[in-house]
Amino acid sequence: MKLLRFGPDGQEKPGIQTSEGKNLDCSAFGEDWDEQFFTNGGLDRLQIWFEANQSKLPEVPVNARIGSPIGRPSKIICIGLNYLKHAQEAGMQVPEVPIIFLKATSSICGPFDPIFIPKNSKQTDWEVELGIVIGRRAKYVKTENAMDYIAGYVLHNDVSERDFQLRHGGQWVKGKSADHFAPLGPFLVTKDEIPNPHGLRLWLKLNGKLVQNSDTSDMIFDIPTIISHLSHYMTLFPGDVISTGTPSGVGMGLKPEPRYLEHGDVVELGIDGLGTSRQVAMNDPES
Amino acid sequence: MKLLRFGPDGQEKPGIQTSEGKNLDCSAFGEDWDEQFFTNGGLDRLQIWFEANQSKLPEVPVNARIGSPIGRPSKIICIGLNYLKHAQEAGMQVPEVPIIFLKATSSICGPFDPIFIPKNSKQTDWEVELGIVIGRRAKYVKTENAMDYIAGYVLHNDVSERDFQLRHGGQWVKGKSADHFAPLGPFLVTKDEIPNPHGLRLWLKLNGKLVQNSDTSDMIFDIPTIISHLSHYMTLFPGDVISTGTPSGVGMGLKPEPRYLEHGDVVELGIDGLGTSRQVAMNDPES
Repeated sequence: MKLLRFGPDGQEKPGIQTSEGKNLDCSAFGEDWDEQFFTNGGLDRLQIWFEANQSKLPEVPVNARIGSPIGRPSKIICIGLNYLKHAQEAGMQVPEVPIIFLKATSSICGPFDPIFIPKNSKQTDWEVELGIVIGRRAKYVKTENAMDYIAGYVLHNDVSERDFQLRHGGQWVKGKSADHFAPLGPFLVTKDEIPNPHGLRLWLKLNGKLVQNSDTSDMIFDIPTIISHLSHYMTLFPGDVISTGTPSGVGMGLKPEPRYLEHGDVVELGIDGLGTSRQVAMNDPES
Repeated sequence: MKLLRFGPDGQEKPGIQTSEGKNLDCSAFGEDWDEQFFTNGGLDRLQIWFEANQSKLPEVPVNARIGSPIGRPSKIICIGLNYLKHAQEAGMQVPEVPIIFLKATSSICGPFDPIFIPKNSKQTDWEVELGIVIGRRAKYVKTENAMDYIAGYVLHNDVSERDFQLRHGGQWVKGKSADHFAPLGPFLVTKDEIPNPHGLRLWLKLNGKLVQNSDTSDMIFDIPTIISHLSHYMTLFPGDVISTGTPSGVGMGLKPEPRYLEHGDVVELGIDGLGTSRQVAMNDPES
């Protein structure tokens, strides 16, 4: 299944995209796609309900805003420097264990919402990433069982302010957490539709020009390793998002010189099977 | 007012401690002390309701578990190295701007719950801290207005695993986020009861011996500076907790050698006006 949410920011309704690409309104199911839904076996119940009711469901209005495909999770955990060439372009050592940081969940927005360039920012940058959505509580999980804890996958642009991240007093969270720094979606794709999450092309274009172009097979730490590792430091809750790192080609690493987002820039990104998203950069209207 | 929550973990009910020290059950108010409550002017409505209904409210059973005084917030933001002597005992430079990190909200527990020593931990440590609870959405806030965004204050033990924090691949979140690493409470004290949050004694005892003993006047960055600074990097939501850093006397800094928590150790802590809490350290039952 491909789960999505639509409607105004903060008032999203649940929907599903069919295999024919139609977006159907699933408000009648009576639940949001959030922690409680995943905790209570929502995916299995939804599948049965959807098969029985699909033909009766209204279509999502074509001009509806698409929101994040999941309700606000308890946390977004990101993996740093998980692609060799990206670690090199960032001038960082290749990590011996997964580097992790949290991204404030207040940064979540829809896949076609604008990226807000924060007040005083000069280095807002892009990062296409494969996001994992956790399906059940995970603590001290073994690598060999780790895939059992996944609900599905989601496209994520881990927008980052490099100056805030690296030169404002340590701990990367400062450059990762501004509003609209986490466009998620267009949809959550359930695990059964992605038989091999380690063989997906992922790419990102800036103003139509391909700048990131890699494959999830290039990850330094694979998905089971990441889930197991994380679950030894903190308990993962259903609906939590783990973003698995970005390949090379971010603005910070471009030659002959870095290139950061400016008002009006267009960012498009995609991952095989997870759809595409598109954001226009704009100065934060609250700044 | 002193807001508290009681009952089994995950099923807490709301209550208030009166000025005579009685804990009254406020379930009849019909709301939890959480983001939605603070967002919708809950504190003002509660005060009126409580004055009208106080005499009719049942007492909280004396043997009831006391939980975290607030429902799970969107984030816990901690300030690192905000007391001079603690920066020195940690062998770190005194920061020029507030150092911030997020602590997973899955770490929250009640003020008298055990501290769980995580699997493979040898350096679980304590940190008494003054926590601020945000009362309304805060973004790009000026220092001179920052106090307007506070709902109240809460006692927090920012439990930390030093090896996970400092030697497991960077970014402190790894040592800050295990289950039961954030005992909060016993209650949230509303702002009006703490006229000067920069003149509060804070202390912590290990097995009856005073190890931390300082005053919030010793903070390097004061509360308005912290709120303003944070609000330029991420939007603060009602109910969010900001933990303002710990003074010297943590286990890592003890002489002649560090001392970390062992199964059976008793930690007691307190801050003027915010009550006291007590946790017994035990090996995580899930490990």
